[in-house]
Amino acid sequence: MRDDTPYNQTEEQLLQLQRLLETSDGSGIDDLLAGMDVQDIVRTLESFPGKTRDLLWEFVPEAVVGEVLAEVDEDIRADFIEPLSADDIGQIVKGLDAQDVAEVLDVADDDIRTSVYASLDEGIRAQVEYLHTYEEDVVGRYMDPETVNVKQGVSLEAVQRYIRIHHLLDDESQQIMVTDKDKRLLGTLTLIDLIKQPQEAVIDHYMDEPFTLSDQMKVNEAASILRSKELAFVPVCNREGILVGQLNVADVLEITQDDADMTLKHMSGVSDEEEVFTPIMRSARSRGIWLGINLLTAFLAATVIGQFTEVLDQIVALAILMPVVASMGGIAGSQTLTVVIRGLALGQLAGNNKRWLYNKEMWVGMINGLIWALVVGAISQLWFDNPMITLVITLAIFINMSLSNLAGVLIPLILRRLKIDPALSGAVILTTVTDIVGFLSFLGLATLIILK
Amino acid sequence: MRDDTPYNQTEEQLLQLQRLLETSDGSGIDDLLAGMDVQDIVRTLESFPGKTRDLLWEFVPEAVVGEVLAEVDEDIRADFIEPLSADDIGQIVKGLDAQDVAEVLDVADDDIRTSVYASLDEGIRAQVEYLHTYEEDVVGRYMDPETVNVKQGVSLEAVQRYIRIHHLLDDESQQIMVTDKDKRLLGTLTLIDLIKQPQEAVIDHYMDEPFTLSDQMKVNEAASILRSKELAFVPVCNREGILVGQLNVADVLEITQDDADMTLKHMSGVSDEEEVFTPIMRSARSRGIWLGINLLTAFLAATVIGQFTEVLDQIVALAILMPVVASMGGIAGSQTLTVVIRGLALGQLAGNNKRWLYNKEMWVGMINGLIWALVVGAISQLWFDNPMITLVITLAIFINMSLSNLAGVLIPLILRRLKIDPALSGAVILTTVTDIVGFLSFLGLATLIILK
Repeated sequence: MRDDTPYNQTEEQLLQLQRLLETSDGSGIDDLLAGMDVQDIVRTLESFPGKTRDLLWEFVPEAVVGEVLAEVDEDIRADFIEPLSADDIGQIVKGLDAQDVAEVLDVADDDIRTSVYASLDEGIRAQVEYLHTYEEDVVGRYMDPETVNVKQGVSLEAVQRYIRIHHLLDDESQQIMVTDKDKRLLGTLTLIDLIKQPQEAVIDHYMDEPFTLSDQMKVNEAASILRSKELAFVPVCNREGILVGQLNVADVLEITQDDADMTLKHMSGVSDEEEVFTPIMRSARSRGIWLGINLLTAFLAATVIGQFTEVLDQIVALAILMPVVASMGGIAGSQTLTVVIRGLALGQLAGNNKRWLYNKEMWVGMINGLIWALVVGAISQLWFDNPMITLVITLAIFINMSLSNLAGVLIPLILRRLKIDPALSGAVILTTVTDIVGFLSFLGLATLIILK
Repeated sequence: MRDDTPYNQTEEQLLQLQRLLETSDGSGIDDLLAGMDVQDIVRTLESFPGKTRDLLWEFVPEAVVGEVLAEVDEDIRADFIEPLSADDIGQIVKGLDAQDVAEVLDVADDDIRTSVYASLDEGIRAQVEYLHTYEEDVVGRYMDPETVNVKQGVSLEAVQRYIRIHHLLDDESQQIMVTDKDKRLLGTLTLIDLIKQPQEAVIDHYMDEPFTLSDQMKVNEAASILRSKELAFVPVCNREGILVGQLNVADVLEITQDDADMTLKHMSGVSDEEEVFTPIMRSARSRGIWLGINLLTAFLAATVIGQFTEVLDQIVALAILMPVVASMGGIAGSQTLTVVIRGLALGQLAGNNKRWLYNKEMWVGMINGLIWALVVGAISQLWFDNPMITLVITLAIFINMSLSNLAGVLIPLILRRLKIDPALSGAVILTTVTDIVGFLSFLGLATLIILK
């Protein structure tokens, strides 16, 4: 299939670049990339397979190389960095903020990291080293360690002057932190209030009581809080209540979107890192694990079928209808699973509302189970004209769909209690259960009712 | 399963409220809700089934009833509004901004909407009516129609004074719009620059060239652009280039998160509206459609099996191994599908990089197909000790997994060309294909090789 109609402006840029690559028009590529912002360049690099990407990397305007490197996908960043010396990297990260430098150094070797540390400005180095004290999956690693702090009792006008004199505020700043002498956070002042309120007033009057996150909180938990509270800016404090950084809107978007992507990928057995243009061998390897797990569960289901060779041998129609039972249960269960995983992500499930949910899903399972059992029964009666088979499949569909819905609630809740991410393994466990229950009920009933 | 350990602070609030409800402690509930912000109250209401939710609704502090109503899930909002008169609603929406009023009136009857319109302040009414001229799925419906506009050539200081005198900027403002006399957008000025740059300077010096969205752009397309450009604020213009509104960070979060949720739900056959606490009958009905479609495809697969009764009759082991072939193909295909759907959402697939992708997926499919075909072959040899069966299943797994990976690329690309959302029906079409190819190759090869 060849299709050159771009669906939007981002795809149009992509097509334009492909044409320039085909004609080896180097200065055309230079011009095109020079007209792009950092995000466009990042997306473009991520939209090409390895070789072309390495070629394009050479065309990235020098002024934004550092930012592009910090923003691009981790795997790609590692590829770009690999051939570079510590000097090259030190040159590239010059002028980047601490967050970006930390991102770049994350994928560098230990000895390169040490020599780049040495070449950094004092202030940035301390911040980068501080960020690197955090584990990769906690809020502290995602935060901006640079905040604008002022003390109580000063006027808005004084704050504005202070900002101008010291060249504070960067592109992402949203709030001013009001702290005591130990850097304990007392309140926050939005830039909006800083502008719109009477300038002679003291900040204390317009200070908001801040909602803060702990620097040690896991990012997936933070994602669910940020999403449910619709926050776009949060101060981050350590265990002693000392302000250590802030999550700006870009950090918040990164945290919540990574989390949503991960849920989607986990539910279909794709690893976190895989993107469209991940190289062949890397993709094959990372998907292999999931295929292996699936193989185990598929053979588990096959073993169940293996117990019923006698009845299968006698009535071949059972082999034909078998997948229908498993498939209806699988869909019913995964509908429930999706809704429950979402509810857990939003923090909606606690205490006795879970009981309501079991009850609901049992009823939904039984209602849909009954309706579709009758439909399937009618079809199989028309097809095979055998009332025994019809009775068996009708009962089996009803049983499997009802139990699948309950499994869709139970599995994620149990997984979470075991501290396993329900999105990661919920789907595969669920399908195993619905397959086994489906085959067991269908072939078991057939043995009981038809063989007798 | 009963489990009363809260996993985080949002769940702790929920448990606390449940205890208050159990002991009918009305003033306790009052106190708890009074201490919550709007987002907490919304999440709490969404975390209870219908009856309890209606009870809690009565406890929502009067000052925030309007905001809560505007923020809460659409289905729930409709339930809350249903018993209210136009007067009640007029009272509730008093003081809300145009976006919130429009949200509330979206779910009201036509005649109620008309009488509420009449009761609104002139300025808000015009804005609400303007928002209602947009279709539900375009950017115009999500935007904030109120922007802060200034003309070129004035100093930063003058802009600040102008804002204070006219009480401009609301809680979500991020940028000032610089427009000409026809409201055509010339540039934007961030609040950050407004504060940090020399106050006597003219805004023209610090004006950014804005990236804008069209008011008629579909929201799912907007979501992919906002995500790939990591934008948290965008001016919205109409076809004539006139500024008509802006997307604030909350609007951006809403658009991108709704889109991510929808992809997840669509991929598992759950409708957009369904949440954990959607009532039983509504859930059963909305999931029924998907179950019906799945039934059709399951019977399609069954029909394929039905063509091979002769060989199934002779070798019952085939019935046992059949689901393994289908299942391995299904997982391989859906891994590819997920990666491709994500690539499409990020605008990474256009022109000839699609050819690279076919190539990649073909190789990944063949590599993993070969490995797992050999593994499955070995297991089935150990199990059934029949070289014919081993040969058949080894070939079938290899064929099905290779083709499934190609189907995982082709299906979403074809669907998009037909202007169908690949996330919506991609998974069900894919499973149908992998099931049919699996059964056909496995039973077909068995007929050819074993029956001869």
